[in-house]
Amino acid sequence: MEHLSDAVIRRLPGYYRHLRELEIRGVKQVSSRELGLRMGQTASLVRQDISGLGESGRQGYGYDVSQLKQTIGNLLGLEHTHTMIILGAGSIGTAVARYPGFAREGFQTLALFDEDVSRVSAQNMGLRIEPMENLGRFLQENRVDIAVIAVPASAAQGCAEKVTALGVRAVWNFAPVDLKLKEGTAVVNVHLSDSLLVLAYQMEQAAMREDQR
Amino acid sequence: MEHLSDAVIRRLPGYYRHLRELEIRGVKQVSSRELGLRMGQTASLVRQDISGLGESGRQGYGYDVSQLKQTIGNLLGLEHTHTMIILGAGSIGTAVARYPGFAREGFQTLALFDEDVSRVSAQNMGLRIEPMENLGRFLQENRVDIAVIAVPASAAQGCAEKVTALGVRAVWNFAPVDLKLKEGTAVVNVHLSDSLLVLAYQMEQAAMREDQR
Repeated sequence: MEHLSDAVIRRLPGYYRHLRELEIRGVKQVSSRELGLRMGQTASLVRQDISGLGESGRQGYGYDVSQLKQTIGNLLGLEHTHTMIILGAGSIGTAVARYPGFAREGFQTLALFDEDVSRVSAQNMGLRIEPMENLGRFLQENRVDIAVIAVPASAAQGCAEKVTALGVRAVWNFAPVDLKLKEGTAVVNVHLSDSLLVLAYQMEQAAMREDQR
Repeated sequence: MEHLSDAVIRRLPGYYRHLRELEIRGVKQVSSRELGLRMGQTASLVRQDISGLGESGRQGYGYDVSQLKQTIGNLLGLEHTHTMIILGAGSIGTAVARYPGFAREGFQTLALFDEDVSRVSAQNMGLRIEPMENLGRFLQENRVDIAVIAVPASAAQGCAEKVTALGVRAVWNFAPVDLKLKEGTAVVNVHLSDSLLVLAYQMEQAAMREDQR
């Protein structure tokens, strides 16, 4: 398979999500046009993306829903179970721990860690909270694939360095900072403020277009 | 100013964030190289991005931090205050309501709406929660710029259609669905599951590279 561009990689989860919905509804085949409509993209881009994965549809039939879902699921590593810990049991950490749907894809949260184990919001919800000082021992005793960074910005770099030094290979970062981590660490950022500012930009542009009319 | 590409628009909040940090630390000027290091990008891309905004640095000086921050802030519409409501007072809606930093940029949450106003997690935190049936009246009485969609996937499209029909022009969507809304509506998605799957893809690729060694 050819090397996939970042843009294609970002679209893979969307394809996977739509194919799963179709499969659940009992749909066996789907055209590039319909998949494009669902994704808000052209049929031509869909064909290009999927052909880049080494899959092809059939004229007049389209793609086999289950097979394409399986191909993309394998690319995303979804045949394995992934274990996660969450650093920071505040509102973001708790929301991630409670988010439905991760477990369905095989992402299992083992524990949350916080400086203050009495944090009410997470405790109330029956989640396992450990003091941050237990982190080292926990990582020796458990295989942890992913560390979720949900601590304040000022603590994020230090926390991420600590878990990667202890062998965690993937970091899902919710703190509004750009982490610098050792090579070979997979990092994906969810910068909520950045996302809100992109929305603000779109609003500003829409308002300018109105003014010009 | 030329039309900005989606890739540049996605980088604007990062530039803004780094420039704000520099400004707070009292730094007056910054080179494309240093801004690039902070953003994890080449100096050349930084110069290209910023020149596309109509700003230029000076040889041997770089960019004026405050001026560049102002330019990007204006593009993002940050000279205005934006009002928000949050639909869904579960863990995601509550996390958004409590997220620090939005208010600092002038994004003000007026209220949360939920079918069940007794939801403990949000009530506990002193947030204003209204029953969903009050939404229409609230939107008549208050100017609301942004609706945050934090309801379950099955309710998201209906909620988004309702608020946009009532005049809200921007939707920040946390439900794992691709909303179809009327033209002129600004929409930005935060698909947490998709983000996690991109991380899983990166891990899978890293593991394959290891195996090939």
